[in-house]
Amino acid sequence: MGILTHTELWGRPGRSSFAGRGRRLRRAAGASGSVVRRGQAAASCGGGQRQAAFRDNERPIVSSAESDRPTDRPSHQPAFLFDLDGTLIDSVYQHVVAWAEALEGVGITLSAWKIHRRFGMSGGLFVTALARELDTGLDAETLARLPGLHADAYLRRSEDVRALPGAVKLLSSLTEHGVPWALATSGPERYARLALELLELPPEAPLVTRDQVRHAKPDPDLFLAAAERIGVDIRDSLVVGDSVWDLLAARRARALGIGLLSGGYGREELIYAGAFRVYEDPLDLFEHLDEVGVRRPL
Amino acid sequence: MGILTHTELWGRPGRSSFAGRGRRLRRAAGASGSVVRRGQAAASCGGGQRQAAFRDNERPIVSSAESDRPTDRPSHQPAFLFDLDGTLIDSVYQHVVAWAEALEGVGITLSAWKIHRRFGMSGGLFVTALARELDTGLDAETLARLPGLHADAYLRRSEDVRALPGAVKLLSSLTEHGVPWALATSGPERYARLALELLELPPEAPLVTRDQVRHAKPDPDLFLAAAERIGVDIRDSLVVGDSVWDLLAARRARALGIGLLSGGYGREELIYAGAFRVYEDPLDLFEHLDEVGVRRPL
Repeated sequence: MGILTHTELWGRPGRSSFAGRGRRLRRAAGASGSVVRRGQAAASCGGGQRQAAFRDNERPIVSSAESDRPTDRPSHQPAFLFDLDGTLIDSVYQHVVAWAEALEGVGITLSAWKIHRRFGMSGGLFVTALARELDTGLDAETLARLPGLHADAYLRRSEDVRALPGAVKLLSSLTEHGVPWALATSGPERYARLALELLELPPEAPLVTRDQVRHAKPDPDLFLAAAERIGVDIRDSLVVGDSVWDLLAARRARALGIGLLSGGYGREELIYAGAFRVYEDPLDLFEHLDEVGVRRPL
Repeated sequence: MGILTHTELWGRPGRSSFAGRGRRLRRAAGASGSVVRRGQAAASCGGGQRQAAFRDNERPIVSSAESDRPTDRPSHQPAFLFDLDGTLIDSVYQHVVAWAEALEGVGITLSAWKIHRRFGMSGGLFVTALARELDTGLDAETLARLPGLHADAYLRRSEDVRALPGAVKLLSSLTEHGVPWALATSGPERYARLALELLELPPEAPLVTRDQVRHAKPDPDLFLAAAERIGVDIRDSLVVGDSVWDLLAARRARALGIGLLSGGYGREELIYAGAFRVYEDPLDLFEHLDEVGVRRPL
């Protein structure tokens, strides 16, 4: 099966501005002389065909509240629910440095590794974890300033953020083979929109952000909402994430978890948090899709 | 035993400029309203008493080429050989971002986590690892530019670097109790001098840098040279590091390895690389010195 064109994938002529943006991003990368890693450049934009595939798919959706006996469900392709930061885009280290700067801005020094290991969890839990590290309490006014300070510090660094190797190729390949997928991030929509551009995805790509659910990771809400968005059973879904918060949320949602090392966690940390497989990055996952049950022509 | 004054520790009036610098650093931290983590503020400068302690110590030094039968050696306090970045100062994430910027500067995109996991190893091995990640070769001219680009990018961020929690306290406490210690870093002397200031140490603190040995970590040279510098047997030494390269070098040098999570590696990565104990950071090690055989009054 060949790579589909943008029009074949998305089908709406009005969206040609997105295709243009994708081309501009690729041109910019080429002009700066970047050495693009194996396999990253050949990918087309992806994500749209999934919706078409599911419009034609009449199989029953079983909510997670119902029975999970295997005999209740037909056998079919898994769906993929992806985290963003550290999983598809290489932004974790910029976020860590930005959080450290934001905290220093309100007079708090917190070690970078502790920020790193808590990044991607819900903001409320992050603050609880932060308070445990400090001798003094945190007043409400200080807490209220933190997200804005972090956003400013991150956005100053966001030009350095790139898609992870194989991310664009992985999504477009899943789309090409009719494997449904969605994105689910603990981050706000503002950052997620920047990520869509890096991933050469249109604004209407299936995406659930922090703003759209009550609780972020490690609560299961984001992945449950993402599965619902694309009309798949969470129990047929593979959650792909770089942090233990993704994997804990996956277990709580009754999805299977796949860990990626590209967010800087160690392999065993991800396994102990529930990952049934661990790959280096999206490219490594792409090259081993057969191991997680994706049937596709060779 | 109380905390010793600077003069008691270092004993030379001519070094008061260092004490002044230490005080200035502390004042600056206070003025910016930083919340200093548990136990960090109370530490005095340290490291000097060790040399005095060892001038009076006539026990024989056994080179690592000789027998390592336990019966050959007397029983005594262990010595500590510390890595710097990620072990005593919180600089790893700044180094990672600086390396990413330096590589982009010569047209190479490399994922941050791959830089992170290779940081602290010898530059020659780093380049070999880098070449494996890229499709294209690296010419000598490009390679020659990288260290300078990295240094510039790191120094622009070095104002954000802090001592890790408990680092100053740990060193001064070891000094106070006559436990010998030295610093050994794969980095150049230029960065190590900045670290000494953060650690409130004088320029003559026992320090071995990249420039002073033939091979950096994971070769054993740096730790062997550090043990020799302070006149201790490497086999009585505890190497404290945050990276697998420290721990591999420790094993090759025949020292025992202690891992710290403060450089952002996972606990199991450090254990699998040979750490016989893993602590969070210098403060956590300080609070558990009894576990690694340091006898001191309660």
